[in-house]
Amino acid sequence: MSSQWIADRTRSFDSSGIRRVFDLASKMRDPINLSIGQPDFDVPDEIRQACIAAIESGKNGYALTQGMPVLRDKLQQQVDAEYGHADRKVFVSSGTSGGLVLAMLSLVNPGDEVIVFDPYFVMYDSLVKLVGGRTVLVDTYPDFRVHLDRVAESITERTKMIIVNSPANPTGVVLSDAELRGLARLAAERNVVLVSDEIYRSFCYDEPFVSPARYNDQTLVIDGFSKSHAMTGWRLGFVHGPAAVIDTMLKLQQYTFVCAPQPAQWAGAVAMDVGVERYVDQYRRKRDLLLEGIGDLYEIVKPGGAFYVFPRAPRGTGGEFVQRAIEHNLLIIPGGIFSRRDTHFRISYAADDRVIERGIEVLRTLARE
Amino acid sequence: MSSQWIADRTRSFDSSGIRRVFDLASKMRDPINLSIGQPDFDVPDEIRQACIAAIESGKNGYALTQGMPVLRDKLQQQVDAEYGHADRKVFVSSGTSGGLVLAMLSLVNPGDEVIVFDPYFVMYDSLVKLVGGRTVLVDTYPDFRVHLDRVAESITERTKMIIVNSPANPTGVVLSDAELRGLARLAAERNVVLVSDEIYRSFCYDEPFVSPARYNDQTLVIDGFSKSHAMTGWRLGFVHGPAAVIDTMLKLQQYTFVCAPQPAQWAGAVAMDVGVERYVDQYRRKRDLLLEGIGDLYEIVKPGGAFYVFPRAPRGTGGEFVQRAIEHNLLIIPGGIFSRRDTHFRISYAADDRVIERGIEVLRTLARE
Repeated sequence: MSSQWIADRTRSFDSSGIRRVFDLASKMRDPINLSIGQPDFDVPDEIRQACIAAIESGKNGYALTQGMPVLRDKLQQQVDAEYGHADRKVFVSSGTSGGLVLAMLSLVNPGDEVIVFDPYFVMYDSLVKLVGGRTVLVDTYPDFRVHLDRVAESITERTKMIIVNSPANPTGVVLSDAELRGLARLAAERNVVLVSDEIYRSFCYDEPFVSPARYNDQTLVIDGFSKSHAMTGWRLGFVHGPAAVIDTMLKLQQYTFVCAPQPAQWAGAVAMDVGVERYVDQYRRKRDLLLEGIGDLYEIVKPGGAFYVFPRAPRGTGGEFVQRAIEHNLLIIPGGIFSRRDTHFRISYAADDRVIERGIEVLRTLARE
Repeated sequence: MSSQWIADRTRSFDSSGIRRVFDLASKMRDPINLSIGQPDFDVPDEIRQACIAAIESGKNGYALTQGMPVLRDKLQQQVDAEYGHADRKVFVSSGTSGGLVLAMLSLVNPGDEVIVFDPYFVMYDSLVKLVGGRTVLVDTYPDFRVHLDRVAESITERTKMIIVNSPANPTGVVLSDAELRGLARLAAERNVVLVSDEIYRSFCYDEPFVSPARYNDQTLVIDGFSKSHAMTGWRLGFVHGPAAVIDTMLKLQQYTFVCAPQPAQWAGAVAMDVGVERYVDQYRRKRDLLLEGIGDLYEIVKPGGAFYVFPRAPRGTGGEFVQRAIEHNLLIIPGGIFSRRDTHFRISYAADDRVIERGIEVLRTLARE
């Protein structure tokens, strides 16, 4: 009886692909797990202590909708110093996903088109559909770069938004200053909202991070502490962009997320002063370890950031390859989860070196099969 | 430029009423604050310690979508023991608001009607509009009880959902077993989803709490730890209902809230064993203190639960009355925020006794003005 009650919007997307992988994974005993989308280190101690101090001192009630001043004001100062945009306003969200949800609800009308680069972080397509929008995929194979001509061609009267994610999940690709500048200007010229998901900005290994907001002051930036400070389970993100958009997102936050967890906000203020260079150095080394381990046998676009590598499956589909990997006790994610194509697979190297080494061994065996 | 980007759905509701009150409030110095929608006690110590232990022991990563087994399994056992419904499934949400958002997204199609009892918790109407539904208000003045005939008359072909909230915000009214049974059966007969927001269930002062789920096994129950254990800033709720609905909500949770904060989940498992009788006793006494203090001068429906009283303004509108109260340094909320009518005002007695006493003094003065 209750199943006839389900709303239509929920039928427009499914999670069966990733669920199938997790179902397989749940049957694995002690897998070589290179599938994880979060750091393998714990929250740095000074941040944990700040969270504990907040809890001990009674900072446990509702936070202000826009975030506690201790964090929000500090973020606003940081953003002002970085961009100097007169109209750029910050608020604290419930993780970057909270920021993305509110961005979609605030900006995308039913029928609006949202340009997403393929391959993409799974949430983008699902959220566009959830609000009745239409995802327009712009292909980035085989080099996973932004080709401006392809983007320009894809913009129509109905295009409301372009989502860019650099460093990217699942490819690890970091876009160049020139690419981001071009995209930023194109969005401005065509009056399209540019949403920049910068959750991996701390993890840039070869070139410094560039935000397209530098070249387009109307860019809506989604950011957070989850990846940089391993705070994925604390649900703390932030968003900055033009005041009119931020004010609308805040109006919706009141009735949806209410607020980001309060103790985490006090900890976030401390996290802003905790450098993550030591982790970035570790992760650069892990990337190099993995690339040295399998680079001769797989077709790989060298990733400059995040903690993912996205190689091409040597034969068959990404799904078939992952199936074989799982038979060898290696857990990785098929590219079809992130893409219209099922030709690649995602490896996360946010793992202990020994796990990466065991993964390399299996991947070398599989390539030669 | 960016203001033309805003999506239509965000224009369908505003928060100007409550914002006006908060703007006034922000100018008050040390107000007599009887406006707060959260307990005035802190999270009980054993629960704070459990949260701290979780943080210290590295429980800081993503939680499972449905919640960590330590909490989810325990909740499932509790729900099974209470209802014994074969098809009733539980998941952990980001507060009760997270549960409400997912319920709306999962169940309400554009154009669907949702029956809400007036006066109502502000989020209900806003969320219905956010997903394109239409709120159908069923008047409960002057006694704030559920009149089944009015509900039956309001059900149409488009009615998808009825939301009931007992004990209620803003009236504090607790519905009787007979009222809830009647409502539960009516919903079942007419194939309408009954959503029961039970966030105040611990705060029943005169009669034991009754859930309509007892009489309708398809009831979707929204519950949480925010009010019972003062964990409003920890964003921890839970939802139970028919498996098909819960599975849909979980699919959406993956792409929206992702998960409730992990450390709070470990603390929630401990909270389930922490009785709140001492707080309930205190709050019953606070209710009686307030009623004894102003009951002779105001028209009041005696509230049996939550921590609100909803008296009628002695003259003029609720808004005008609150304006005068604020001039006397007393912060309360006009009834128009919660209702189509602006004839009443909400007092929260989740405050220190001395604050309640100072509030009583001002309210006695205002009644005699």
